[in-house]
Amino acid sequence: MIVTLLTDYGRDDEFVGVCHGVISSIAPEARIVDVTHGIPRFGVRQGAIVLRNTLPYLPSGVHVAVVDPQVGTERRAVALRCEDGRLLVGPDNGLLSLAWDAAGGVDLAVDISRSPHRLEPVSATFHGRDLFAPVAAHLAAGAELADAGDPLEAGSLTRMELPAPHTEGDTLVAHALTVDHFGNAALNVTHAELAGTRITLGSTVEVEVGGEPYLATYAATFADVPPGELMVYEDAYRTLAIALNRGDAANTLGLASDTEVRLRPR
Amino acid sequence: MIVTLLTDYGRDDEFVGVCHGVISSIAPEARIVDVTHGIPRFGVRQGAIVLRNTLPYLPSGVHVAVVDPQVGTERRAVALRCEDGRLLVGPDNGLLSLAWDAAGGVDLAVDISRSPHRLEPVSATFHGRDLFAPVAAHLAAGAELADAGDPLEAGSLTRMELPAPHTEGDTLVAHALTVDHFGNAALNVTHAELAGTRITLGSTVEVEVGGEPYLATYAATFADVPPGELMVYEDAYRTLAIALNRGDAANTLGLASDTEVRLRPR
Amino acid sequence: MIVTLLTDYGRDDEFVGVCHGVISSIAPEARIVDVTHGIPRFGVRQGAIVLRNTLPYLPSGVHVAVVDPQVGTERRAVALRCEDGRLLVGPDNGLLSLAWDAAGGVDLAVDISRSPHRLEPVSATFHGRDLFAPVAAHLAAGAELADAGDPLEAGSLTRMELPAPHTEGDTLVAHALTVDHFGNAALNVTHAELAGTRITLGSTVEVEVGGEPYLATYAATFADVPPGELMVYEDAYRTLAIALNRGDAANTLGLASDTEVRLRPR
Repeated sequence: MIVTLLTDYGRDDEFVGVCHGVISSIAPEARIVDVTHGIPRFGVRQGAIVLRNTLPYLPSGVHVAVVDPQVGTERRAVALRCEDGRLLVGPDNGLLSLAWDAAGGVDLAVDISRSPHRLEPVSATFHGRDLFAPVAAHLAAGAELADAGDPLEAGSLTRMELPAPHTEGDTLVAHALTVDHFGNAALNVTHAELAGTRITLGSTVEVEVGGEPYLATYAATFADVPPGELMVYEDAYRTLAIALNRGDAANTLGLASDTEVRLRPR
Repeated sequence: MIVTLLTDYGRDDEFVGVCHGVISSIAPEARIVDVTHGIPRFGVRQGAIVLRNTLPYLPSGVHVAVVDPQVGTERRAVALRCEDGRLLVGPDNGLLSLAWDAAGGVDLAVDISRSPHRLEPVSATFHGRDLFAPVAAHLAAGAELADAGDPLEAGSLTRMELPAPHTEGDTLVAHALTVDHFGNAALNVTHAELAGTRITLGSTVEVEVGGEPYLATYAATFADVPPGELMVYEDAYRTLAIALNRGDAANTLGLASDTEVRLRPR
Repeated sequence: MIVTLLTDYGRDDEFVGVCHGVISSIAPEARIVDVTHGIPRFGVRQGAIVLRNTLPYLPSGVHVAVVDPQVGTERRAVALRCEDGRLLVGPDNGLLSLAWDAAGGVDLAVDISRSPHRLEPVSATFHGRDLFAPVAAHLAAGAELADAGDPLEAGSLTRMELPAPHTEGDTLVAHALTVDHFGNAALNVTHAELAGTRITLGSTVEVEVGGEPYLATYAATFADVPPGELMVYEDAYRTLAIALNRGDAANTLGLASDTEVRLRPR
């Protein structure tokens, strides 16, 4: 079975490699896919969104996510099965909730804080190694979810709420949700929500950030605008996004997670 | 079968992980090797050179390369078989051409822009996920190349030309082709071309960049010169290169892709 | 069998990918685990410590480590079997010595500089590709260690010595040994050595670096101190370490490898 990993550990230290080692020790046949380890440090919301966005492209398996500012405190650690059969493992801080919603909801959940699969002594700072990786590996090797921890009421799991966009006249008031390492910023506006606006392919859009107006083209792809020009587009997850062709939109416009972005047709 | 990946996606975002997920979904038995994802953004030529240089060290399989500034436009996407049996998959922008030349030329090529293996809907910005990875995975799983797309005249494929070095008196006029992340710069001078010059192991070489002369030792390895000193050497691909022992030659000398470098014996 | 890799190559260039390719060519069934490629360039000591720390979490196999400032010179390259059965491969510069000590000592060692498994011609600058990867792959594929090179006296192998901490009155005089990419610095003080001091969980500790005193809390985990505050803690390898919650302790305090750190109860 496959084990996927999504963390904010980065690839520069040995943390990810150690998790691979632990998984391979317990489940030598498991295949490991690194979804990303570049979630901004402690970026629980960005982690939750990337997990939800990428899950449909991953084989069904055990999906570990670790963005965990409260590691070592009393926050719960959980493993759960979604209605579509995928298993999710991670801290109970909302990181998993967008993914299980997209996967049909939670079928069964357990609290793994004292899982029989954990590596003893569990360190206070590296639950990826001591808790999440070994639990995931045992699940991948065929262990029952119910045996991985203590029963948990699915309704008690921590959920994450995303801000919703709204309109003010012909202005769409949105927020940046995620920013990738090229500086492309995805907004909280889906393909469906965009359909109701007057923002249409090929038109010019005024993008207001921090009171400053910028002009952008609503384009399909980067090469549709000249280098150095701003574009609004539907990204690969069908989310409205802002990019600067061959540049860094987030840096240029001052876009970060939660920045308000006001869009209006021009 | 093996699938290798070479891109400019970086490892900080989830793009590479998603490609792994797509490949593993379609071809669970395929082994994936990440050659590099650190090609400079849109560095088609550097990507082409690294692909050519590394191919001899990779098991024969399906070799995906994606450095694709024109993604989502009318540029073709291709899959092809080299005379030595290797399969190459990527955009038709010259990225693959040095590799197929080194592999004996093209035996069969198809246009995969509307491949039956593509993931629908194909996004305008992420053909790695929607086109190149699934086509490669189906090929790795045993699909026929001819069934992956529409027939294509091999002669119509886009080729890349590299600048050739020349001599002016006893000066070898070369250009930097690639720069690695340690600041070592490889020139467009091969082992064979170097043989014809008066630049010999152990001698001092004058390296002129931007009108500025520097002195370097023609050495075999880094430890042959003191820390902080410049050296000219034959790199691991038997190409003439410039390094600064324990430093960054590209940064110090102002070397980037295409910078002219004039070398003369001293 | 498993092959693990630990290097200072970084992930931005193709060096690691080429090593994977070489290993997969020789030992198609071998599983490869990248422990880390983010050891600071030429950081032999940090590499030695990370190798020792991580080995217990890796399946027993062939463990390659390459941090090799003297590549291409007369320094020896070695492969050896530890008393616990693990095989280590790398340069003979002390990089492997902490690991084999932790693994019960050396059972058998060979000089692989002229190994029959090497790739010819061996480049002067990329022994990872031409020497260490192919030797490791052949060992993983079942080749005998004794056949990988020339017999070597285990006692002649290069060892690494770590500085020991000492006390001056109630001051513990320690040194930083490793710094991770979050700026957390591990000191040369183990769980056992700490037990003998008056530094206890929950207490305030004065941390003196470069003559400058800082106040830190001896905490169990990051969330135990407010964001921006300094903490001393036992890290995941049971080593005393210094962190700044949600910040970069190494940068803030000026901590690098070998920096003296003076700790006293307050």
